[in-house]
Amino acid sequence: MITGQHLLGMRGMSADTLYGILATAKGFKEISKRKIKKVPSLRGRTILNVFYENSTRTRVSFELAAKRLSADGVNISASGSSVAKGESLLDMAQTLNAMQADAVIIRHGSSGAPHFLADRIDARVINAGDGLHEHPTQALLDIMTIWDKFDDLEGLNVAIVGDIKHSRVARSNLIAMRTLGMNVRVAGPATLIPRNIAEVYGCEVCSSVSEAVEGADVVMALRLQQERMNTGLIPSTREYAIEYGVNAAMLNLTRPGAILMHPGPVNRGVELSADIVDGDRSVILEQVENGVAIRCAVLYLILGGTQQ
Amino acid sequence: MITGQHLLGMRGMSADTLYGILATAKGFKEISKRKIKKVPSLRGRTILNVFYENSTRTRVSFELAAKRLSADGVNISASGSSVAKGESLLDMAQTLNAMQADAVIIRHGSSGAPHFLADRIDARVINAGDGLHEHPTQALLDIMTIWDKFDDLEGLNVAIVGDIKHSRVARSNLIAMRTLGMNVRVAGPATLIPRNIAEVYGCEVCSSVSEAVEGADVVMALRLQQERMNTGLIPSTREYAIEYGVNAAMLNLTRPGAILMHPGPVNRGVELSADIVDGDRSVILEQVENGVAIRCAVLYLILGGTQQ
Amino acid sequence: MITGQHLLGMRGMSADTLYGILATAKGFKEISKRKIKKVPSLRGRTILNVFYENSTRTRVSFELAAKRLSADGVNISASGSSVAKGESLLDMAQTLNAMQADAVIIRHGSSGAPHFLADRIDARVINAGDGLHEHPTQALLDIMTIWDKFDDLEGLNVAIVGDIKHSRVARSNLIAMRTLGMNVRVAGPATLIPRNIAEVYGCEVCSSVSEAVEGADVVMALRLQQERMNTGLIPSTREYAIEYGVNAAMLNLTRPGAILMHPGPVNRGVELSADIVDGDRSVILEQVENGVAIRCAVLYLILGGTQQ
Repeated sequence: MITGQHLLGMRGMSADTLYGILATAKGFKEISKRKIKKVPSLRGRTILNVFYENSTRTRVSFELAAKRLSADGVNISASGSSVAKGESLLDMAQTLNAMQADAVIIRHGSSGAPHFLADRIDARVINAGDGLHEHPTQALLDIMTIWDKFDDLEGLNVAIVGDIKHSRVARSNLIAMRTLGMNVRVAGPATLIPRNIAEVYGCEVCSSVSEAVEGADVVMALRLQQERMNTGLIPSTREYAIEYGVNAAMLNLTRPGAILMHPGPVNRGVELSADIVDGDRSVILEQVENGVAIRCAVLYLILGGTQQ
Repeated sequence: MITGQHLLGMRGMSADTLYGILATAKGFKEISKRKIKKVPSLRGRTILNVFYENSTRTRVSFELAAKRLSADGVNISASGSSVAKGESLLDMAQTLNAMQADAVIIRHGSSGAPHFLADRIDARVINAGDGLHEHPTQALLDIMTIWDKFDDLEGLNVAIVGDIKHSRVARSNLIAMRTLGMNVRVAGPATLIPRNIAEVYGCEVCSSVSEAVEGADVVMALRLQQERMNTGLIPSTREYAIEYGVNAAMLNLTRPGAILMHPGPVNRGVELSADIVDGDRSVILEQVENGVAIRCAVLYLILGGTQQ
Repeated sequence: MITGQHLLGMRGMSADTLYGILATAKGFKEISKRKIKKVPSLRGRTILNVFYENSTRTRVSFELAAKRLSADGVNISASGSSVAKGESLLDMAQTLNAMQADAVIIRHGSSGAPHFLADRIDARVINAGDGLHEHPTQALLDIMTIWDKFDDLEGLNVAIVGDIKHSRVARSNLIAMRTLGMNVRVAGPATLIPRNIAEVYGCEVCSSVSEAVEGADVVMALRLQQERMNTGLIPSTREYAIEYGVNAAMLNLTRPGAILMHPGPVNRGVELSADIVDGDRSVILEQVENGVAIRCAVLYLILGGTQQ
């Protein structure tokens, strides 16, 4: 379905393709419950994990996925690499290409870096988060988690709350959710809501978190990056928590059966009150678990793994 | 025997269990002498190495052990991880759990961190050193090294010399050695000997290194951590070496056949004079070699590996 | 041929041995074009990658080679290791030895570190670059790249241009190329050409880059290390580029079919004008590709891999 393609973003991906990836991921989730979690599908394939930004969840999740498929992975991080020697992304791309990897997973601070790479190398490129642009596997694992709880995605009401402006997670989710017919409302400090977001993504901008979450099936809080905390974009962490943090009272405004999501790691007491992080609405840990399954599916489909 | 359990410390481990681990480790030591050092026992199992503190010996030793058992390992270090993003150990624990590893090996600066983890995750937890608390695989490899030289552990005299207070190596050894009926004497600067140590561990506190090593079968010097060197706890590195360093003259006070141990890396000329580090009493390198075998045994037993 | 030996440098290696490695590498290059790039030759062997200096190309290249041969690799870098605890190379050597690796790949800032290690450990040692001394696998991959283009190496004219003095790449190439009967000219700032180089290596020192490249079959520009750029050894990066940078006009002075090489990463506009880096004379990316094949061949030959 997406065999041989890159995974650069959710933009342009059809509902059929999305459901195909989700269904494949469900199969890999079953495998991860076995005692021996390994399948030989990608034996002898080489995957490079190129992380220009720190990450635990995403890097480890991709690494585990590669190992479960029996692929060989090699890690390259910005520190300790020739990036420190001032090597350009162009030269890095050409070097990676000459090493003949089958796939390159890249996280980069600049929006578009994965596209730049994809234009220049033979390997399949998977975007693991680029600047303020996209984070497609995060959107896939988020939607997989929603699908686990709701049989029908169409018409679901989703509230995305927080720093929309700097969130590649929000962007990828907005695109994919709209493709699947979900209704999305966003809320956050006015300084952190991009202009024209309603027109660009077909979502609704709410003036308060309460308004956004009322009647929602899914509440997705975004991480407030620490580097934004002292920039004047928000008054203070404490005031942010009061005005835009999600708490138990707000969850009472949602529909019965509504779920609470967060891409992690959570700043407890900032984006979410501590009680609801571990409460029965929370599916935050299912998101992490589904992350490995989604990355198995993406690697398997893109690299055209042999039958399991 | 310890199948399915955590390995958090030596506290509470019976002599039978200790000998069971040692015997299993002897088997793995044989395997490590083969040309092909690998067995398929833990194929398809996932092991996370979570190191919040730097380490070469311990991390590499665990990594080699996991590979010799054909397990899949993924490394997580504090730098370059979401720890840098301020993630709590609770959130890390939940995330690790959601990734469904079979075992988590953790080194952490806070005493009790592995226990905290073990209460919250499904994976088996192996303590690779926590704060000033325990370092159980180090004690196991130390005792394996002693057992290689002495057929009967019971009644052996052990002198542990140096910074007892800040040593998790000393604590784990004290507990395990007492369980096995060994007699332990400790010596070091008064500022670095914990109060009540004699009553708590059933050992003897000596007022000088000479007194401690006299008649000993085993002399174990502890590493003087560089961060302790300039704190007022010792007068100076040079005076420490004169007063508490072990040298050839002191080894002459021990029993015939006595051995010299150190967890490494040695500060040559501080804890030990340079000549005896490489002398014929030294079993420091056997300790390193046994470290891989002990970690193979621990992983194999805990994860219930298939027959070799 | 070199089974069971160390690879410390090009010094003393016969033309026969060189051609043997190159021929083996050609075989591995074929394997790297298959969908499944893996052979079981070194299954169960353990390789430690010990990098005291940063590197992407070399470390990743060795790591990929080890994985393609099914060996188990463990990485040790100076940061995050007990090197930070002040461990000496002697202690590191003894520790590595006790861990019973089959091969140790070492990059170190001090010339001779791999020889020091080789004298003290049972594992085979492969020099991945030591100080200002040698970088043998780089010379091998360079010569493999030349051999891909020219059937007969004997009598070829090679111009090596740039900072000869601080280049282990230049030294290893000079030795190997002279062994194979190639004629080598060097050119660079007078401050960066070692005295007596003509006598020691049997090469010709030219007073200008134009003189060196005239009639050359191979032009090899060296990387100008950033740490040299502000030391008074060169007037300025800009003047260096004008005086010693290679550009299209200079390539016109070479023989028809001449190739342009660089060990990478290139400072575009300094050692080489940007147009010729990606021009049709450039074989820089073939060098990277051949790097993996050469490292496969070296590991395979040294560790005496089983039949493919």
